[in-house]
Amino acid sequence: MSKIEKIDTAYYRVKLHRVLTDSTHGEMAYFELVTVRISDSDGTQGVGYTYAVNHGGASIHAMIERDLSGHLMGEDPGRIEALWEKMWWAVHYPGRGGVASFAIAAIDIALWDRLGRQTGMPLWRLLGGHNPKVPAYAGGIDLLLPLPELIEQTDRNLRNGFRAIKMKIGRPNLSEDVERVAAMRRHLGPDFPLMADANMRWSRDEALKACQALQEHSLFWIEEPLIPEDETGHAMLATCGGIPIAAGENFRTIHEFARLIRAEGVMFPEPDVSNCGGITPWMKIAKLAECHNLKVTSHGVHDLHVHLLAAVPNKSYLEVHGFGLERYIADPLAIVDGFATAPDTPGHGVVLDWEALEAMRV
Amino acid sequence: MSKIEKIDTAYYRVKLHRVLTDSTHGEMAYFELVTVRISDSDGTQGVGYTYAVNHGGASIHAMIERDLSGHLMGEDPGRIEALWEKMWWAVHYPGRGGVASFAIAAIDIALWDRLGRQTGMPLWRLLGGHNPKVPAYAGGIDLLLPLPELIEQTDRNLRNGFRAIKMKIGRPNLSEDVERVAAMRRHLGPDFPLMADANMRWSRDEALKACQALQEHSLFWIEEPLIPEDETGHAMLATCGGIPIAAGENFRTIHEFARLIRAEGVMFPEPDVSNCGGITPWMKIAKLAECHNLKVTSHGVHDLHVHLLAAVPNKSYLEVHGFGLERYIADPLAIVDGFATAPDTPGHGVVLDWEALEAMRV
Repeated sequence: MSKIEKIDTAYYRVKLHRVLTDSTHGEMAYFELVTVRISDSDGTQGVGYTYAVNHGGASIHAMIERDLSGHLMGEDPGRIEALWEKMWWAVHYPGRGGVASFAIAAIDIALWDRLGRQTGMPLWRLLGGHNPKVPAYAGGIDLLLPLPELIEQTDRNLRNGFRAIKMKIGRPNLSEDVERVAAMRRHLGPDFPLMADANMRWSRDEALKACQALQEHSLFWIEEPLIPEDETGHAMLATCGGIPIAAGENFRTIHEFARLIRAEGVMFPEPDVSNCGGITPWMKIAKLAECHNLKVTSHGVHDLHVHLLAAVPNKSYLEVHGFGLERYIADPLAIVDGFATAPDTPGHGVVLDWEALEAMRV
Repeated sequence: MSKIEKIDTAYYRVKLHRVLTDSTHGEMAYFELVTVRISDSDGTQGVGYTYAVNHGGASIHAMIERDLSGHLMGEDPGRIEALWEKMWWAVHYPGRGGVASFAIAAIDIALWDRLGRQTGMPLWRLLGGHNPKVPAYAGGIDLLLPLPELIEQTDRNLRNGFRAIKMKIGRPNLSEDVERVAAMRRHLGPDFPLMADANMRWSRDEALKACQALQEHSLFWIEEPLIPEDETGHAMLATCGGIPIAAGENFRTIHEFARLIRAEGVMFPEPDVSNCGGITPWMKIAKLAECHNLKVTSHGVHDLHVHLLAAVPNKSYLEVHGFGLERYIADPLAIVDGFATAPDTPGHGVVLDWEALEAMRV
């Protein structure tokens, strides 16, 4: 039995190429990346990471370094469920979601990566091995792009191999959203999978009106129409809004997914492995979805999610959008004719450019 | 209009007099205190604080210092609801409860304290002014105390003016819990308000059996029988267990309280102002409880909660238990014949001993 011997964590602020904007997060000028490297007594390593936009990196890093690492040293790195449970309860009081779910996620991802490298297996095979080919969509952060630029961006995405696209909605006036969605639908044709993301912008009444106004444009899903806490609002919208709902990037625990699914408030649960506590809970959410006849999608960190969606039978689209993290990854994910393919290298196979990152270390 | 000119935050690790133990948190050797001092352009100050046991202080401190403070500088300190909303959304992505609710709480408490000092009003009057006399109970962390010591501690509490007491339960064998509760009931007489706190120790089946076994000893309430996420489990227990349920010290948002109350899973909601986001959400939870014919109780930081319970008509007992923070407070709360009295000094009136704390600063 090997033992955890060393845990390195680091915190980086990475400037974005271009300031991004959506309806909820305002201007996003950089993202904060927190990494974890776990080494065991056999010399096997595992790498995990999480990120947040604008805020939170220092807090996540402090929790890993000061609160969690000490509970892992000397432990068997292969008992991931037991370590997950130990971490959860160690920081339960200030934890229970929020920052703790990001901190635990980075560690949990590193533990799974280590197991993959130890066994020589890629994560997608280790976690079930359904199909390495995963349909992918381009997630745009384009709320403020003028319509011609939105169309240009769309054409670029098509040239880059995407056969599904998500756009942002939630502009000050609903008519602007309707006009932009209609223009995209005209541009892409009637059957092209087009999603729209409102980033929790609306109140219940606004969301209902928006769904009614957008219904004729046949969106593949509408994402985060309401704050995530409002599961009965989601259920109302699922019944009366007429557009499939995706939600979950702002859920931090398996229980929140269970509750929204039980309320019939979501058709595409959307866990993010980097903020829901890691691969261990992500897989539970995927199984929970399958048991309820739901397909699961993802949010961000596509280099990790491609494995998780490849592992499960109830895969929906993989979101491809990484805040430019691909600039620091050796072999960024390629999209070919609408599909990404999970690699066959052991673990998650993501090789970070530690030297380039060093300049951005806080 | 005054403006926020300065925000000081500090993080302390305070050793406990004696290592405490309960069924969930294990050994508690010290607590972590995070303070906030806000000064406005008129020279008025406000002080807020939050705490966590063993873990979390560095993470909370980092979020206040790096993520939240910048959003407050130059703002009108009297628009507390607007500042609360601004903070919530600024850290929404890594936030949504967890560490963020502690960080926002410390700031929100400081803002309310400042308003009290500006107006010359004690918080309990500013927030509604129901009755400054608040019934109080002694909250023991005594799971591992041998029975004779538990009885001794109880007699000490009675001598110190308490007329209501809470004990810990959740020992390895249910029969031990039953024996200890029975002994306490015999010692205190049939009508004495005796509460018991299980600290989320049990699974559903264990909780049900425990309630059945403890029912004849007429507990005033049983606290946190289950993990806080399990609202339908709480509802089952409320129906079948036969003992009033208190819960909420591990809820970090108003929505979690709304959900448990809507599920009929709690009779005594128990928000903690230092971890639910501060006075602003605490008061909403108290009103929510009142609208549902429920009395509200508190958790920890009794020097603050005495004001909040004094403000509202639907007050239940104030928990008195402060991890020894009273050693660093100028005039700790006195208990006389079962009651604490909210002071009439402006704001919350808590004067921390900054010099003594300095030695424990991290």
